Amino acid sequence: MLTYQLEYARTEPLYLQIYEHIRKDMESGRIRAGEKLPSKRALALQLGVSVMTAENAYHQLEAEGYIRSVPKKGWFAEKISILQPERKSSAQKVQKAETAPHQPEHMLFPFSVWAKIMREILASDQARLMTKLPCEGAYELRTAIAEHLWNFRNMQVQPEQIIIGAGTEYLYMLLHLLLDETVFGVEEPGYSRIADIYTGLGLECIRIPMQEDGIDLNALQNSRTEIMHISPSHHFPTGAVTSIGKRYALLGWAAEHPSRYLIEDDYDSELRLSGKPIPALFSLDVMEKVIYINTFSKTLTPTIRISYMILPVSLLEKFHQKLGRCACTVSNFEQYALAEFIKKGCFEKHLHRMRKYYKERRQILFARMKEYTIFQNAVILGEDAGLHCLVRFQTGLSDAALLEEVQKAGFQASALREHYHEKPEEDLHCLLFYY
Amino acid sequence: MLTYQLEYARTEPLYLQIYEHIRKDMESGRIRAGEKLPSKRALALQLGVSVMTAENAYHQLEAEGYIRSVPKKGWFAEKISILQPERKSSAQKVQKAETAPHQPEHMLFPFSVWAKIMREILASDQARLMTKLPCEGAYELRTAIAEHLWNFRNMQVQPEQIIIGAGTEYLYMLLHLLLDETVFGVEEPGYSRIADIYTGLGLECIRIPMQEDGIDLNALQNSRTEIMHISPSHHFPTGAVTSIGKRYALLGWAAEHPSRYLIEDDYDSELRLSGKPIPALFSLDVMEKVIYINTFSKTLTPTIRISYMILPVSLLEKFHQKLGRCACTVSNFEQYALAEFIKKGCFEKHLHRMRKYYKERRQILFARMKEYTIFQNAVILGEDAGLHCLVRFQTGLSDAALLEEVQKAGFQASALREHYHEKPEEDLHCLLFYY
Repeated sequence: MLTYQLEYARTEPLYLQIYEHIRKDMESGRIRAGEKLPSKRALALQLGVSVMTAENAYHQLEAEGYIRSVPKKGWFAEKISILQPERKSSAQKVQKAETAPHQPEHMLFPFSVWAKIMREILASDQARLMTKLPCEGAYELRTAIAEHLWNFRNMQVQPEQIIIGAGTEYLYMLLHLLLDETVFGVEEPGYSRIADIYTGLGLECIRIPMQEDGIDLNALQNSRTEIMHISPSHHFPTGAVTSIGKRYALLGWAAEHPSRYLIEDDYDSELRLSGKPIPALFSLDVMEKVIYINTFSKTLTPTIRISYMILPVSLLEKFHQKLGRCACTVSNFEQYALAEFIKKGCFEKHLHRMRKYYKERRQILFARMKEYTIFQNAVILGEDAGLHCLVRFQTGLSDAALLEEVQKAGFQASALREHYHEKPEEDLHCLLFYY
Repeated sequence: MLTYQLEYARTEPLYLQIYEHIRKDMESGRIRAGEKLPSKRALALQLGVSVMTAENAYHQLEAEGYIRSVPKKGWFAEKISILQPERKSSAQKVQKAETAPHQPEHMLFPFSVWAKIMREILASDQARLMTKLPCEGAYELRTAIAEHLWNFRNMQVQPEQIIIGAGTEYLYMLLHLLLDETVFGVEEPGYSRIADIYTGLGLECIRIPMQEDGIDLNALQNSRTEIMHISPSHHFPTGAVTSIGKRYALLGWAAEHPSRYLIEDDYDSELRLSGKPIPALFSLDVMEKVIYINTFSKTLTPTIRISYMILPVSLLEKFHQKLGRCACTVSNFEQYALAEFIKKGCFEKHLHRMRKYYKERRQILFARMKEYTIFQNAVILGEDAGLHCLVRFQTGLSDAALLEEVQKAGFQASALREHYHEKPEEDLHCLLFYY
């Protein structure tokens, strides 16, 4: 029988306290590997908490690999030694660390697989590791990405169209050097780093308001925007998916003038957790007006700096003419390692594991929301994709008070209003939650 | 006795033909490890070539580790198995490949040491490999660089002043984002990539003519230049070293206006082959007007993308304010590996080996020059530093004809005139030679 003293006065939610007690008992050996744990109902009864709270504690332990559920038999403790050291403190991190938006946790990084591949790379074919790569990167990696996009995203891309760079911010800089236009459109609200970078480069940034089905086309038409930066598959922060009608309208807008382009920021499409996959805007484009950008920072780790963009074929000549002599910003070692990682299927496997993990986190988050009255009648939006969702509250509280309320309850959240460049005067009653 | 059939009609110089014959004999086992080779005089006699040609062949073989010289005993064949595979074809490369200026050969890269350090990094302290670094890079690496600069370059720098980036071109982009000024000065003649990048970023580039002791100060004073990009320790392509008087005058120019800065491009100071080390302009600067830039591309390999800049303390706050949220462009893995590489003394050792190798190459180059009448009365300039020197010819030939002549003789060279933005009308009679 598990008996723990829970501290109701602590700001830490009960399920996390239970989680920590069980984890410590496993680490100290009080709970042995293979031991059967009480059912969630029995545990709830023993500790005087709701069944939901007990279940959330078990889900957290399971998501981190401490325990496993055997259908019709119950919950069992796993062998602790198989756990990676950095995984131990994740639940504490959720509670304590101020994770920035867009920053998934990387305790899932397949460290031993990556280390093995890196060792193989270091031991073989040294000549190619010493040969300077062209600006666009290693052909092996670009081929691997093209195949991955074909299999996973149903995108038909030639490796020649793919440009590798050390992070998306660097790719934005390259795009600025490539395109002659200086008036960029960005989404309002949106991910503020994008406008920061463009503005820093001396470009004019026009904010185009978001609607429920994508950006406001009238506002776009009436602006002087030449290059529109959008995230049609999953907008940050609203979670909006651009409707198919609006996608075609956007392509039509771009086709009206030779200097117009759309930058499709597909930053978290691979972490889509449920629902039908959204086809890339790039795949609908027959007029060569879409520049596609994606990154391995979200799916692998931001500490390996590899992003890529896909240029329309018609831009390739200009790219080579203007930027062909630029040095590639990613080291050969890591480009070849990532190519192997993708080719061997490790990346697919890793994505599968990430999605499973974040689905469980989402489930825990939604279950926890039900424990608090503030979430009554709240509507969850954009929860199918990526690592965050938007919640619209039915409340008279100000956005600041609302945020304080949910943070006090231990949720990791930010106010939607923070992601506006022009802060709205009225309260939005909307918060972002990170899984 | 070594008897080889030399082909006098081939464009390949005789010493390289001899080098290849001996190398093949070593690889086939005809010459065994430890075997004594004929003296240079005996070899010259056997093959009917000059003693200088025989000596050049031996120097090339020695520089690549095929043979070694034992004082007062003669030349001996080394064990072939100890050679790294990529070293075998280097002499052919010199002959055939079109190596770009600034591109040292990287067969000297200490591959096994780097692989060992990388394996250690991958095996230890996984948490720090997964923790996103600030824009300026890993503190360990910045500390290691600061210590290296203190020991090797006599520069007093705080790690906080050092910013890591994926290549110098990326650092120029960061500088553009950091500084508000838009009128940049570059050296004429100069390394054309620098002006290309600045111009691509939409900045105005003013060419300031070079004189024998550095850039033309009057031209600088009379221009609207705000940020002057210079290479005072070893100018590319002329090899000019900026005199101490001109260094102080440059600092004075920068101090006259708050918006003025000097960018000190110290790209090859670590490969200074002889003569007194030139102190960095950065070390003379008490007005915080010099931004120092250097790279590991020349000294290690361009396939590991790590460069750095050092900002005056007074610019740090602005840097953090404007660029603090930018992602660092170099992966954690390689930053920590390089930090270890420097801390363990491997970098110093490697630099020593590089300098020794290039000194030998230079010696071979100068000896070969004596074989050709075209070099009679020619003056060699800027030969103390880096991987190239300038030769001023006494000739009535046009620059194009001159270049053709020396290339026919197997030299790797380019015409000085190619490195001017505004090509001079008259012939310069100057060629650049790469070691």
